[in-house]
Order: sequence, then C-alpha cells, then structure tokens
Amino acid sequence: MRTVNVGLIGLGTVGSGVVEIFDRHAADFRTRAGVDIAITRFADRNADRAEGLGLPEGAFTTDAAEIIADPEVDIVVELIGGTGVARGIVLDALAAGKSVVTANKALMATHGQEVMDAAAAHGVDIAFEASVGGGIPIISPLKHCLVSNEITTVMGIVNGTTNYMLTRMAQNGLDYETALAEAQAKGFAEADPTADVDGHDAAAKIAILASIAFNSRVSIGDVPVEGIRSLSPGDIAYATEMGYAIKLLAIAHRTDEGIDIRVHPTMIPVAHPLASVNGVYNAIYVIGDAVGETMFFGEGAGSLPAASAVVGDVIEVARHITRGCLGLVGCTCNEELPVRDIGQLESSYYVRLHIVDEPGVLAAVAKVFGDHGVSLASVIQKTDEAPTAEIVYVTHRATERAVRAAIDQISVMPIVESVGTMLRVEEL
Amino acid sequence: MRTVNVGLIGLGTVGSGVVEIFDRHAADFRTRAGVDIAITRFADRNADRAEGLGLPEGAFTTDAAEIIADPEVDIVVELIGGTGVARGIVLDALAAGKSVVTANKALMATHGQEVMDAAAAHGVDIAFEASVGGGIPIISPLKHCLVSNEITTVMGIVNGTTNYMLTRMAQNGLDYETALAEAQAKGFAEADPTADVDGHDAAAKIAILASIAFNSRVSIGDVPVEGIRSLSPGDIAYATEMGYAIKLLAIAHRTDEGIDIRVHPTMIPVAHPLASVNGVYNAIYVIGDAVGETMFFGEGAGSLPAASAVVGDVIEVARHITRGCLGLVGCTCNEELPVRDIGQLESSYYVRLHIVDEPGVLAAVAKVFGDHGVSLASVIQKTDEAPTAEIVYVTHRATERAVRAAIDQISVMPIVESVGTMLRVEEL
Repeated sequence: MRTVNVGLIGLGTVGSGVVEIFDRHAADFRTRAGVDIAITRFADRNADRAEGLGLPEGAFTTDAAEIIADPEVDIVVELIGGTGVARGIVLDALAAGKSVVTANKALMATHGQEVMDAAAAHGVDIAFEASVGGGIPIISPLKHCLVSNEITTVMGIVNGTTNYMLTRMAQNGLDYETALAEAQAKGFAEADPTADVDGHDAAAKIAILASIAFNSRVSIGDVPVEGIRSLSPGDIAYATEMGYAIKLLAIAHRTDEGIDIRVHPTMIPVAHPLASVNGVYNAIYVIGDAVGETMFFGEGAGSLPAASAVVGDVIEVARHITRGCLGLVGCTCNEELPVRDIGQLESSYYVRLHIVDEPGVLAAVAKVFGDHGVSLASVIQKTDEAPTAEIVYVTHRATERAVRAAIDQISVMPIVESVGTMLRVEEL
Repeated sequence: MRTVNVGLIGLGTVGSGVVEIFDRHAADFRTRAGVDIAITRFADRNADRAEGLGLPEGAFTTDAAEIIADPEVDIVVELIGGTGVARGIVLDALAAGKSVVTANKALMATHGQEVMDAAAAHGVDIAFEASVGGGIPIISPLKHCLVSNEITTVMGIVNGTTNYMLTRMAQNGLDYETALAEAQAKGFAEADPTADVDGHDAAAKIAILASIAFNSRVSIGDVPVEGIRSLSPGDIAYATEMGYAIKLLAIAHRTDEGIDIRVHPTMIPVAHPLASVNGVYNAIYVIGDAVGETMFFGEGAGSLPAASAVVGDVIEVARHITRGCLGLVGCTCNEELPVRDIGQLESSYYVRLHIVDEPGVLAAVAKVFGDHGVSLASVIQKTDEAPTAEIVYVTHRATERAVRAAIDQISVMPIVESVGTMLRVEEL
C-alpha cells in the first residue's frame, strides 16, 4: 500500500485538531479506510505553534511554498483562512498537481469558481466539507446522497456564536451586550465579533451551500445580510408569546424567479426542527423534491469537530489517489440561475416601533402600511414609559419592497420616536 | 459518455418511487453528476405493477433472472426485501459482475457479511443507504465524512410507525390500540404491525448502523429487542412529569466490554435532540470522539424518500463505473468486538407496579430492590382504584441483571397485583 503524504498549512485551532486526530487514529485509517496516510510536512508563519505538537524533526517550516514545492506531498491541507495568502497557496498547490483540502469558507464563497476550475484543470480533488457547519456532514450529503433531488430549500443555523447568544437571550433574558460579553468570556466569540454578529460568516456559508444545492454559483457578495445587533430581549419575548423562536438563519430557496438567498434574524415557529437547535450547535435544514425534509445537526465550530471534517476529506481524497480516480466529483454548478432581489421577497414581517402615546397614532401608522398595500395580521401595544408606547405590528404576506417603503415613511412621522426591529417570518 | 444501464427488480412502493425520480431527473444526472444512467430493465412477479408506470416496450419481465443474465445491465437494484428470494438475486447479480443497490435491511442485517464478501470477491459495489432511515443520509456520512472518528454511540428513532404512535400517545393521550388503529388507517402501519411495534425493524437497522460505526459485524440476532405494546398513556404521563420523553430507541454504544446494542422504549430527557423528533420522522444521533454530537433527521420511510437514497446510491455507483473505481469503499468491519450481554447494562430504570394498597407494601417492595443492590432515586405512588395502588419506582444506576432479578422476585409477591412497564433511561 503506497503512503499518501499530506502537507498541513496552518497550525491554529483546526490545524492542531488535525494533528491530534492523526495522532489518535492514523493506524485506524489503514484498516478502516484502506489507505495509508501520513502528515509529512507542517507549515505556519508562527514557529511557536509547532511547539508542543510533537512534530517530527525537520518536518516544520515557516514557508508554505516549501510544502507546495515538495514533490513527495500529495495533498495540501490549507487551514490559514481568508482570501489573501490562502488563495495563492490553494491555487499554487492545485497548479502543482496536488489535491487540496480546505476549511476556508471565505475563499470558497468568494473565489469558489476559480478554485474549482483550477482543480478540474489539473485533474485533482478540492474538498471543503469543514467550510460549513464544522464537523457536520452537509456538503458530501448534498453532492452524493441527495444528488437525485431537486433541492428547493437549504437553510440553517450556521453560526454557533450568535446561536449561543440568542439562546442565552431567549432562555435567560440576557440583553445583547451581556450575551456577547459572556460569549467572548467563554471563547465562543472573538474580541472583534463583527464577522459573527453581523452575519458575514453565515453569508459565506449559505453561498457555498446554495451553490451546491441549486447547481448554480452564488458568491458571498450576492447575499443580503443583517446581523443580530439590534435585537432586544423584548423582541424575543414578543416572538415567544406568538409561538416563534428568533434565530439567525442563513436561508436559500430555489424559486421560479431565481435564487432567494439572505441572512437575517428570523422568526420561525417553535415546532420547526431548527427552532430547538440551541447553544453553540448548528443545523442545516434541506428540502428536496424526493427526500422531503431533512436536517443535519452538530457542533459547527471548534478544533476537533472542524478537524473531523478536514480529516474525513483527506481520507476521501487519499482513497481517490490510491484508486486513481481523482476529480470524481468536481464543480456541479452547471446552471446559471439569477439571484433574486430581496425586494421581491414575500413574507410576513414583524415590526417594532416606539411611538408617542396619544389618540390616533396607531391608526395613522396602520394607514401607512395600508397605503403601501401591506395588510396587518396583528398589532400588540404595550405602554412603555409614558409618554411613549411600544407597538409591534405583524403583517400578512407582503413584499419586502412594500414593507420597506412603508417603514421608510413611518420612520419620519413626527409621532414615531424610533423604528426598532424588523424581522421576517419563515413559516413551516 | 457511456450509458450505465440499470435493472430494477421490485416495483412496489420504493421501486415506483425510483421510476418517478428517473422520469423527473434522469437528464439532470447527466449535467449534475456527470453520468448517463438509464433504467433499461424492470422486473416484478406481479405484472400488474408494471401498468401505469409507463415502462418502455419489452423492458418488463416477471423473471428477475433475465435481468441478472442481461449482459447490458451494469447495476441491479433489488427492492424486493426479505432474506429469501432477495438474497439469491443479490448474490447472483454480484456473481455476474454487476454492482447492487438495495434497500433491504433484513438482508444486510442478516447476511451482510456474505453480501459484502461477494461484492469484494467480484470487484463490484454494494450500496444500501436506503436500508436505514429512508432518505436520510446516514450510511454514507458514517463511511465517509465521519471516518476519522472513533464512534462511541449511534442511536436513533429508526421506525416511523412507532414514533407516530408514541407521538400521538404523548401529545393527544391516545392509548396503544387507538394509536395503532389510527396509524393503520393512515397507511403508516401494516395490517400485521409486528415488525414495527415489536421492534424487529429497528433491530435490523441498528445492527447495520453499529456494524459500520464500530467497524465490527453485528447481526440482527445479536440485538435484544422489546417493543411498545405494553406502554400505557400513564407511563408517558409519568415520564413527562419527570422531564422525559418516551421513544422507541435503537441504541448502540461502544464500551470497553464490547458493543452494547438493543432496541426498546426508552426514557430520554426532553432536552435531548432525539426527544423532539415527532410523528413519522426518523433521526439518527451519532457521537464521535472528534466530531462530538451529530444528528441526522428526516423522513424514514415512504416511496420517494427511500427512492431518493436508492437513486443517490445508483448515481454514486455509476460514477464509480464510469471512472473505473468500483469497490472504492467495501466492508469496513475489520474488528471483532464482542456484543455485550444486556445483563451487563448499567442504567437507571423506571418500573411501574400495581400493588395492594395497605401499610408496609411500599417498604416491602423497596426492600427487595435493596436486597439486589438496586438503590432507588424516587418513588411515586398514586392511588388507583382501591384496594390497589400504582407505584412507579425510578432507580439509580444499576445493572440490568440486578434490576431483573429484583423484578422477578417482586412479581411473585402476594402484595403485588402486576408488574407493568419496565423502562430504561438514557441520559444525555
């Protein structure tokens, strides 16, 4: 049995998890998966990271280019992240005839087509299961098990940081700032939480999932995104009262007018399978025309879960190398579906306002919705601190364009103190 | 592109779903999966079943052997089920050098080793994703995505009929007989519901999953099984009161003493991901040493969901045929772990008794548990129809052997009217 040699670039959180899994199970890969795999080269710009990992003498370098130039290396594992240096490393490795395994969501969501084309051109594999949902198998199930379906929906909770925060806000009444501070203290959120709380991380992941599910390339720039900063415990309390959970959902639907894709805090019925996914867990919910509803649940981040997916990909690529069938499944984006403008979205909307508490105000605001063709399903008024009151409107199905136009007009009415949260409702 | 020819044997529920998916999507398989696949031959003992499926002239036969003998057929899809005729068809097809896709849980759970060995001997693929969990991807994720893990637990709700019944009993207070009659009326249960309600269907599925997850062959005969016939709405009410759901779980754990495997109604905490899987849905929960907790949810039965998995397998095998890499992943049972006797199980137990309602009885029964080294965590007594009372004991962790010995002794005490349900508790 020939040994498949792996060069591992990036020894951070996920990289050290990959080293740990190989330490535990490399012998099992031989018996269980029929492949002999060894990590022979390691690179990181920070030499300190090699300390303590027990790497073989001389296997470490601070220069990733050395690994790409090494003729003995069959598979390059890129765990640097980002679209700068990492892009060059991945493209160079592919050009050198090496297969690549990456956890890099930003790269795949931004330069996915370029990377897939390069892999195809050089007859090698590119695998990126870890780029979405940490250790949860989702890319492979979409490309293999569910390939006989026309997928109509792929949506999910794909950011553990914000799901942890929203869970704490819902279950324990924490406000946004307190939930964030706690997530940071527990290591679930970065010092700069922007990528998580503003939804950019989720946007990259849904772009990747939609591209595979709908066989049509979607890039991160195509994804309208709203984060969770403006959510208040009050919004969550209203949602609970109405039988909904609020989750930061990454949503993609195949529609007759193109791909409807977006990331935003969303009200979903408590009976929806995604509604009970709490804490740092992730879950991706998929509807196919044959399979019906499915959901894939697990830990969406962390060293070992993400490394589980990376090493799963490495073993799969190694199988292909030993059997001479690299490139078995390449890019599957053979359609060119348009991405629908979010203004065309039809949904129910939840809108929370602070208004001056005087007679006729409620009717005046309702009239603006009506003028824009938006009919109201319910209104809840709670007196805040006089002289203002908080009002929550829930609309019947209306277009985003109409609702936004109504809100724009409402927000400049003298009787309106402020427009708080606007949430879309995703029904079962 | 060469065409991969499929012979479909069995035109029942799943077989007609396979035909329907090909009718909808065969052209898509070419563009999306890069393979050209056609079902060229169809067989069923019942010629009437061919009617209405719009099969090509001359493609149908009542003699499956014709399909196996057809040199043009590359893949045989076996959808007859059972271990009699189906076993012969599968082995004959493999011996004829054809790859086989099957949904046959009984065959794989009984003759899995023989079938896998035959596929390996003839250098072809055998795929059986549809044998467990209908359309839910679980076998492929275990064999591919999660292969870098040591799996410690695989357990799930793998029978939709009983899950529907238990859901109705829990949410609407139906008794067993009414729930069964309703499931039969809705087509979720057979006229003879034995295989479902007595747990045999689930036992076959967990034998298959455990074999893959633990890399060690487990057969259906190795699985101790208890069904749901003895469950009462009262048991479910007690469980709810204590914060548990009752589910028919198929459970397999890797332990130091071997594989702990069993099927029985189980109390699980309501916060467990499996507890909120309701209705006809199935879910399989997996713990790996790297990935942590994962769960795979979806429709566990039905024509199109099961056909989704079958056609997914067909496409995968067709990819292997066109790329010349059949046998890429064969049998992975390279260990020989013993199956642990259920007497060695350590668990908490729920035991419901009817006793004569007189002083000292509760203490007398408690003493028997104590004599067998079983300590009690809680006792609930509710007066039934005097002169009897219903008592529910919940034990601390104890061995099954000790609890059974205690119950055997208790059941013959003159003060005990009857021993009702005994349930095991699966903690998070």
